[in-house]
Amino acid sequence: MIIGFIGFGEVSRNLVRMISSPDITFITSTENRSPETIERVKKSGIKVLDTFSQVAVSSDILISATSPKNALNVAKDYGKLTKGIYLDLNNISPDTTFEISKHANNLIDGAIIGKISSSNPVLYLSGLYSSDLLFLNQFIEIKIISDNVGDVSRLKLLRSIYTKTLSVLLIEALETAGQYNLEDEFFDILTLTEGENFREKSLSRITGTRKNSKRKSEELNEIIEYFDENELIMVNAALKKLIQ
Amino acid sequence: MIIGFIGFGEVSRNLVRMISSPDITFITSTENRSPETIERVKKSGIKVLDTFSQVAVSSDILISATSPKNALNVAKDYGKLTKGIYLDLNNISPDTTFEISKHANNLIDGAIIGKISSSNPVLYLSGLYSSDLLFLNQFIEIKIISDNVGDVSRLKLLRSIYTKTLSVLLIEALETAGQYNLEDEFFDILTLTEGENFREKSLSRITGTRKNSKRKSEELNEIIEYFDENELIMVNAALKKLIQ
Repeated sequence: MIIGFIGFGEVSRNLVRMISSPDITFITSTENRSPETIERVKKSGIKVLDTFSQVAVSSDILISATSPKNALNVAKDYGKLTKGIYLDLNNISPDTTFEISKHANNLIDGAIIGKISSSNPVLYLSGLYSSDLLFLNQFIEIKIISDNVGDVSRLKLLRSIYTKTLSVLLIEALETAGQYNLEDEFFDILTLTEGENFREKSLSRITGTRKNSKRKSEELNEIIEYFDENELIMVNAALKKLIQ
Repeated sequence: MIIGFIGFGEVSRNLVRMISSPDITFITSTENRSPETIERVKKSGIKVLDTFSQVAVSSDILISATSPKNALNVAKDYGKLTKGIYLDLNNISPDTTFEISKHANNLIDGAIIGKISSSNPVLYLSGLYSSDLLFLNQFIEIKIISDNVGDVSRLKLLRSIYTKTLSVLLIEALETAGQYNLEDEFFDILTLTEGENFREKSLSRITGTRKNSKRKSEELNEIIEYFDENELIMVNAALKKLIQ
């Protein structure tokens, strides 16, 4: 069994770490890659082919884990070359997933939920051939949603309605508490009902959202546009608050 | 030590249950009370005086635990009669707390956070004499915020920015998931990062908010009016969503 990677960032590196089996060979290429990526590939010790076309042709499972804006081009370039499964793990919209399905054989729509570097991430899958990846269950928990590619991307967007809007709500609440010097008390009182890690988790959400506010507002906008038949009042407010 | 109650609802009943000491006598009155309340008082076995004026005069700690709309009148009627501490546990705004402070001697602003019937509610206190109630720590966890009456009410409103807006966000997210029949998957995927009780807790929030949408929208409005120097975009959106 050969698993090939296009893109060798955090997701790919952690998958190599987690999926450790004598029956599985990992391959990738360093064709046109940055010195940093070449260094990372070397460190991982996986097999390196000259071109990504060779990687695609040789893989039983070809994993695209690059960036949202490259995902479609990667599919166009290599999606028909692989005879195995094409697993897209990029953070893309259902519409992009649908576009990719025109260019990739045996597409599976995937997403890793929970931090990939944590002890218990879950790999969500949708698409006709999802059950072919059930053997990975011994390395990472697998959750198959449906036969339809796009369902995982859609579910991820639904999840984001909650998580990304919540982060902006936390910003608003903490700003207001701050005007009365009651930030600590705000966290303390909510810890009683929201759980021990409320402060830490909330601060991590707030920091992440403030630091990446441009990207976060683009993601909120993507949600609004995708679910445009629903008037998402809360998501719209979060976007407004974030770009004000 | 005599603790008197004006109002004998869930809060008062649970305090009687929790604060069990040979040194403490509980009193109340059934003056002009409903048959249901009279029955509840009987069941609790606490001492009954003819009038609330007698209760106020006799109490070392007089607890007002009636309804938000009666809180000020109770203070006007009995606040100057008691020579002890006047502990207001009603769910009132900082402005009402301030009004009450004109009519009640030795006012303490209090709030019970967490379900009073649970094993670990916390009694939040603010006001100059709060430390006089520290002896209650053996029965219920006490948290003193400051010397200023109104600080607990304000903190409660800050808390509500989060909790009440979050409930409306959950309604919007679940409605959207429902349009794709992905409600179960929505809860499952968030449980991975939000904790085991996410589904149960969220459904309880959604049900509570939908069932009491009129009261909840009044409470959201109260938040918006109180913090009117801040433009609370998220809270305003929650109000809009709730009354649409």
